[in-house]
Amino acid sequence: MAEQEGLFAGVFAHGQVDTGSHAWLRAMLDTEAALARAVERAGLAPAGAGAVVTAAAAAAADTIDPAVLGRQAALTGNPVPALVRELTKLVPAQFANAVHPGATSQDINDTAAMLLARQALTVISADLAAAADGCATLAAAHRDTLMIGRTLLQQAVPVTFGLVAAGWLTSLDEARQALDQVRAQRLAVQFGGAAGTLASLGTDGPTVVPLLADELGLGCPVVPWHTDRQRLLDIAFACAGASGALSKIARDVTLLAQSEVGEVREGGAGGGPAGGVRRGGSSAMPHKQNPVAAIAILGCTRRVPGLVATLAAAAEQELQRAAGAWHAEWEPFADLLRLTGSAASWAAELVRGLAVDPGRMRANLDATGGLPLAEHVAGLLAPALGRVAAHDLVAQASARAVATGVSLREALLGQPELRQQLDEAGLSPGQIESALDPAGYLGAAGQFTEAALAAHARQAAG
Amino acid sequence: MAEQEGLFAGVFAHGQVDTGSHAWLRAMLDTEAALARAVERAGLAPAGAGAVVTAAAAAAADTIDPAVLGRQAALTGNPVPALVRELTKLVPAQFANAVHPGATSQDINDTAAMLLARQALTVISADLAAAADGCATLAAAHRDTLMIGRTLLQQAVPVTFGLVAAGWLTSLDEARQALDQVRAQRLAVQFGGAAGTLASLGTDGPTVVPLLADELGLGCPVVPWHTDRQRLLDIAFACAGASGALSKIARDVTLLAQSEVGEVREGGAGGGPAGGVRRGGSSAMPHKQNPVAAIAILGCTRRVPGLVATLAAAAEQELQRAAGAWHAEWEPFADLLRLTGSAASWAAELVRGLAVDPGRMRANLDATGGLPLAEHVAGLLAPALGRVAAHDLVAQASARAVATGVSLREALLGQPELRQQLDEAGLSPGQIESALDPAGYLGAAGQFTEAALAAHARQAAG
Amino acid sequence: MAEQEGLFAGVFAHGQVDTGSHAWLRAMLDTEAALARAVERAGLAPAGAGAVVTAAAAAAADTIDPAVLGRQAALTGNPVPALVRELTKLVPAQFANAVHPGATSQDINDTAAMLLARQALTVISADLAAAADGCATLAAAHRDTLMIGRTLLQQAVPVTFGLVAAGWLTSLDEARQALDQVRAQRLAVQFGGAAGTLASLGTDGPTVVPLLADELGLGCPVVPWHTDRQRLLDIAFACAGASGALSKIARDVTLLAQSEVGEVREGGAGGGPAGGVRRGGSSAMPHKQNPVAAIAILGCTRRVPGLVATLAAAAEQELQRAAGAWHAEWEPFADLLRLTGSAASWAAELVRGLAVDPGRMRANLDATGGLPLAEHVAGLLAPALGRVAAHDLVAQASARAVATGVSLREALLGQPELRQQLDEAGLSPGQIESALDPAGYLGAAGQFTEAALAAHARQAAG
Amino acid sequence: MAEQEGLFAGVFAHGQVDTGSHAWLRAMLDTEAALARAVERAGLAPAGAGAVVTAAAAAAADTIDPAVLGRQAALTGNPVPALVRELTKLVPAQFANAVHPGATSQDINDTAAMLLARQALTVISADLAAAADGCATLAAAHRDTLMIGRTLLQQAVPVTFGLVAAGWLTSLDEARQALDQVRAQRLAVQFGGAAGTLASLGTDGPTVVPLLADELGLGCPVVPWHTDRQRLLDIAFACAGASGALSKIARDVTLLAQSEVGEVREGGAGGGPAGGVRRGGSSAMPHKQNPVAAIAILGCTRRVPGLVATLAAAAEQELQRAAGAWHAEWEPFADLLRLTGSAASWAAELVRGLAVDPGRMRANLDATGGLPLAEHVAGLLAPALGRVAAHDLVAQASARAVATGVSLREALLGQPELRQQLDEAGLSPGQIESALDPAGYLGAAGQFTEAALAAHARQAAG
Repeated sequence: MAEQEGLFAGVFAHGQVDTGSHAWLRAMLDTEAALARAVERAGLAPAGAGAVVTAAAAAAADTIDPAVLGRQAALTGNPVPALVRELTKLVPAQFANAVHPGATSQDINDTAAMLLARQALTVISADLAAAADGCATLAAAHRDTLMIGRTLLQQAVPVTFGLVAAGWLTSLDEARQALDQVRAQRLAVQFGGAAGTLASLGTDGPTVVPLLADELGLGCPVVPWHTDRQRLLDIAFACAGASGALSKIARDVTLLAQSEVGEVREGGAGGGPAGGVRRGGSSAMPHKQNPVAAIAILGCTRRVPGLVATLAAAAEQELQRAAGAWHAEWEPFADLLRLTGSAASWAAELVRGLAVDPGRMRANLDATGGLPLAEHVAGLLAPALGRVAAHDLVAQASARAVATGVSLREALLGQPELRQQLDEAGLSPGQIESALDPAGYLGAAGQFTEAALAAHARQAAG
Repeated sequence: MAEQEGLFAGVFAHGQVDTGSHAWLRAMLDTEAALARAVERAGLAPAGAGAVVTAAAAAAADTIDPAVLGRQAALTGNPVPALVRELTKLVPAQFANAVHPGATSQDINDTAAMLLARQALTVISADLAAAADGCATLAAAHRDTLMIGRTLLQQAVPVTFGLVAAGWLTSLDEARQALDQVRAQRLAVQFGGAAGTLASLGTDGPTVVPLLADELGLGCPVVPWHTDRQRLLDIAFACAGASGALSKIARDVTLLAQSEVGEVREGGAGGGPAGGVRRGGSSAMPHKQNPVAAIAILGCTRRVPGLVATLAAAAEQELQRAAGAWHAEWEPFADLLRLTGSAASWAAELVRGLAVDPGRMRANLDATGGLPLAEHVAGLLAPALGRVAAHDLVAQASARAVATGVSLREALLGQPELRQQLDEAGLSPGQIESALDPAGYLGAAGQFTEAALAAHARQAAG
Repeated sequence: MAEQEGLFAGVFAHGQVDTGSHAWLRAMLDTEAALARAVERAGLAPAGAGAVVTAAAAAAADTIDPAVLGRQAALTGNPVPALVRELTKLVPAQFANAVHPGATSQDINDTAAMLLARQALTVISADLAAAADGCATLAAAHRDTLMIGRTLLQQAVPVTFGLVAAGWLTSLDEARQALDQVRAQRLAVQFGGAAGTLASLGTDGPTVVPLLADELGLGCPVVPWHTDRQRLLDIAFACAGASGALSKIARDVTLLAQSEVGEVREGGAGGGPAGGVRRGGSSAMPHKQNPVAAIAILGCTRRVPGLVATLAAAAEQELQRAAGAWHAEWEPFADLLRLTGSAASWAAELVRGLAVDPGRMRANLDATGGLPLAEHVAGLLAPALGRVAAHDLVAQASARAVATGVSLREALLGQPELRQQLDEAGLSPGQIESALDPAGYLGAAGQFTEAALAAHARQAAG
Repeated sequence: MAEQEGLFAGVFAHGQVDTGSHAWLRAMLDTEAALARAVERAGLAPAGAGAVVTAAAAAAADTIDPAVLGRQAALTGNPVPALVRELTKLVPAQFANAVHPGATSQDINDTAAMLLARQALTVISADLAAAADGCATLAAAHRDTLMIGRTLLQQAVPVTFGLVAAGWLTSLDEARQALDQVRAQRLAVQFGGAAGTLASLGTDGPTVVPLLADELGLGCPVVPWHTDRQRLLDIAFACAGASGALSKIARDVTLLAQSEVGEVREGGAGGGPAGGVRRGGSSAMPHKQNPVAAIAILGCTRRVPGLVATLAAAAEQELQRAAGAWHAEWEPFADLLRLTGSAASWAAELVRGLAVDPGRMRANLDATGGLPLAEHVAGLLAPALGRVAAHDLVAQASARAVATGVSLREALLGQPELRQQLDEAGLSPGQIESALDPAGYLGAAGQFTEAALAAHARQAAG
């Protein structure tokens, strides 16, 4: 677990996800309070016990220092026993048995983790939605903004910036859909007692579980999941999916914002000077404007795969409570929520503030003298020459254009011999000229952009 | 990618998932064939082109050596260009333009990966279902079989083996549900051409994509997903979820099968002597019977987190085609499918053949002289003494039992002073005796077991 | 980065390694102070500048709130620019140019990371040494303590607990050796300025670097390593090696401490009741005594592989400063130091306090009626019968012993037919009896134990 | 384990590292043969046994199909028992006891892994040396070749390509040094028998271990390391270090080779047309020239962190043989060697063939109108204005230059008001002009380049 208030929090704890020690503590106390109310509702605690414990838990949230519990965690391997003792002190003796009834430490820890996850997923979903809306705006505005497509970081064929943004949009929409589904279906209380039987509640356990779930607004599992970590994994995977989508966007922005490319630039949204420090400024180089949001996203998302691996490995839990694998989940799970949340929050800012430079896009597209249209010409020649021969002919002209510094147009039409070949293949100079217009070689870019926008509108409509 | 026929294949390529070089090659050829049929259906290739290319692809699957393509992959960074050249040679010239129309290497590679995934997920789902059925049988048969629950590898309180099996069952059922959902919803063709616009098909791209999807029985994506790797990740996560569930079962089996525990034993299902080598036998120690299936599962599942991390990190793909991140997916994706498949196949065998020893379970439960019932006694004392005092009283008696080697019954009832305390708390010797019967302290074990069985029956019913 | 004072710190921040926000801040200020002294020594700042900035840095360490810097990190992507502004405020104007001269944020961050690493590696090395000494004591004390060796969690052949401890010892010694070597050779200042040329220092950069290194007691690199992360990786790998060795010990302890095995038990060293909470006690089960130290170690070490993966992946850093990969290192690097340190500290306690039960070891060894000596008998028969036939004969006797519940001795000698076979192979009943004595089948256990102790003594002697 | 001959081998199995099934099989047979010779030398087998088994092993290497052993591995969890049976068949009965004496399967598997590692590390070291030599050549040739330094993918301040190559060089040299050290010190035989005591050799075990080590040219460990995986980890970490260094070079090349940057280009070394497929050519775009080697390197190196994580996690091995963790190492260890080897081989080609374009470097440096020298000007103003004011003044001029499209020179000198400020700060127009010459703001670039070359020469000299 990383704290919300640490030295690097501006990068890694951006936005509203809160998984710090105080948030954990509150979630544990909320769980204890809900449990007291649930056992009261089940008739297993005296009337008023729920309210009393709830009040004590609220008081405890303000007075207990997580650091003190943290130190005591060394004695028992987790902070819950110390928490229970502290909470019990705040409860009148006649209600003391309504504190922690039937529960084991893991019940409190795991259910608290679910409460943290609910807060986090709610925030992340909203930030993903905001980022997606921003992408939709970009996709619609730039449906016909020409730019060069780049494969393997080499100029390839023309695309539109609308299509680029549409790709971002679809990935965010699909990641959010998966995340929302997990939030709706996979959050659940863990309540099983010492070994998953709730034996200390006699046969009343199955009565209490749904009441506890109801009190917390969480789902009720088929059986206790103390050593079945599918739910944690589903949350982790949903975050990792979102993180993956965000990482791709951020990577694209850093590449398109390169000095030599200059097609997009981060706006100052949310930034601006603070204490004399300029957003994206460099301490050493006064002229620089760094894509801070994109970099922060990558700083977050690059940490997600390792955390997911840790959690996935931790699913191998022994018998009725794991000796280490369970413990190994706590901080990474919190980190994963926090980092995904930070990345999503940064992304919402980034996309909303992104400045797009269509002029620079066009200039870059034109800079290689028509080479990105080579495929187009080859395609027009293919029916007459066969695809391989057409490909080779244009590849040679392209190579000559590169070697001699002329445009592809010149390389194709400037040589009488080649011109005759083209003639024989039924391609007039006018058709060549036309084939070299990037606006004429966009294929389905517009249709795909519209499809992404339509899908987004459907998802937004519910 | 690990081969199906390697030196360790018996462990890591058990079962029917096939992601070896030949399977990849066939899937690529199936994709090329389907594409030819799709463009013919779209009116973009002459009648008969689909059938001709399909026949050529079938021939190519038998004659092309993956190793030859593999070597040529060094020239272009992937094996598809060489494959296309070889396939084209097998097609009459008039149909040559129906080979690979509109496509780029990634389209073929990614769609082939989806075909491999479909085969794998189908097999894995079936093996998970078989394993789950086996767990259901065990859970039903052992609904009331007493055993000791173990937390942090220490004896805790009684459970039933039925409940243990029910926990396995639920995790398998939920993992399979997630996996089936991915299989139903997230497999899709990738077809975008050089940069995702399908420009070489003019405006016909959006017509061809669904036809290609139809030919292959795969989904049709909103937009090309060449640099949006959510679909691959969803498959990977589904496998990792299943792997996590399987790892927990295998870990439990290795622990319960320990010589000193002896509560379960792997059957010889699928094993038996082969060439004089006995399943689970040791080369050095003639008396040993190793839990080979459980060990093989763990050998597989322990590799999954690293592979998932690799794939999750690879989602950061640059612009219109990634320079390295895409390539980094191929073998790990195939490995992940293969290892999950191998683990699932082993698990189906393991669960079906598992021999359970209720006598040994009872003996282990009784071995500590009633200590696992200490919580029960403390719970009965709590109303009178308060939970903390009750806990401490029983903890002291337990400690004395351990120190002096007597049973908890003896420690509680053998000391007049303590006996009087119990009397005052309203607990008669008979009630203590009764509280020390593990069958009376199972809480909701039976109810939870039935809930898991009912959920399984519902899922099986569809 | 996880804080030292968090809710789970008792488990994950045990011992003396400190990588919290305040420690980072102090290390950054120490670096700035040393840089001022270095430029003064190089004649690039007025006399007294070093002392003035050093004093200001000391004051800043007490007054600057990391949380404030942390929030400002959102503007520039790291907290250093804000730190420099704050520090500069505390320095008289005439010395202001001696703050941060020639440096870029990364110089400060990376050098501070090295200072944290030095503190951490020093502490970890000491804890590893303490743990190794404890293992040496155990190995010497139990050189001849018989116990059963277990392979694949099945009883195999006899070993000694001395040999087990000797294995732990050697792994700790070798891990510490690697770690000490990294500490001695691979810690170095990073100082390169905006892009690794130290251009703002003119040609004086190469004069300042060794002075800065001297001030901090760190090494001087061949060239700035801002985008060459080998040094960080070497530290990470040394930690991961140590963590691996510690994880094996902890795993063994959890297994040997199982209720059904009971061969070792964690002592209360460093524990004892605190606030009524007993070390290793359970909140729900009064009789339990959990191996808290071993579990805490595993809770730490299970997180290390994921962190190492993150750092290893981050080595792919772009050009003169990475856009994200650098940032992704900060918290994981600190976490890795902290977790390794926590695990090492727990291990030193664990090993020192470990209670060994030779009686239980002997009982477990004898529990299977001599089966662990089956290999011994087979080996004695091999010269006469051939190894395969000998193996099969004893395997059959073993199987019969298991099936009928008799000892291997009885299975071998109780059947006249088999007894005759043994006679013919030249093995008398007395030889069989003798072969079934585990003390006679220890091979090199004692020699290996002594070799490990001797190697440890050599390493301790330096 | 991935095969050498798979569909993607051209990318992932480039170069000479061989960890395929046949290589594993040969290494296992080499181990068995060496063991027979060792026991003969120890007087534990009849004269001639070593030669006979060695001959049989050679024959077995040609006749045994790894696939057959692989299938039998399903029975015992590893292929060694089946291998021993097959090998024994090829040995005359009187020498049969010299096959596999004292050994357990793990001894053979682990020692074979060390033999594979030795071959791999030798090859990798040579390829790293070749790559380093290539970097040294580039660094020397381009010691004074100006280019723009880029931080966070934004143009920053001038550097030289020599310095870039020097950074690559140092990282390769240091990675190779670490790798050579592991090769020299950490490869060792594993020989411990069933549980690490070599009991079946009586007290002769310690005699045989060094003889076996001698026969194989491997080190002799202090104690058997069957469950101490430090040696495997050291090898893995050395590979991961090298992989990290290689990944940075490859990333730089992909960035510098971008169409819009064009400062380097991969040569065709080792490529050239093969079957009509051009190295770096695209199947769809005839004009493209992809940086195949750099992409292949990244395809390899991106998989390394996940594999390292798997191996590091596998160090948690239970008691005398791990139930799964050991098995989980086999293929990832082989993959890690293969991928590092492939990346190193690709890198040697890449660096040797790299075409550098100083003209393009200069053009890119000049393209932003002097902005990269802003820091230089600010530095010159700092003594008079103070660093913060100087920084802000130049930052404003830079912003104006960007906004109005003029050069920094024009922005600084073209405004009378600002010009006067500069005058007052003691900076003449001539000094400004001079400060805007990038060749005058290289700091220690040349010195650092020479230091790297000198260190390389020392390392090469031994």
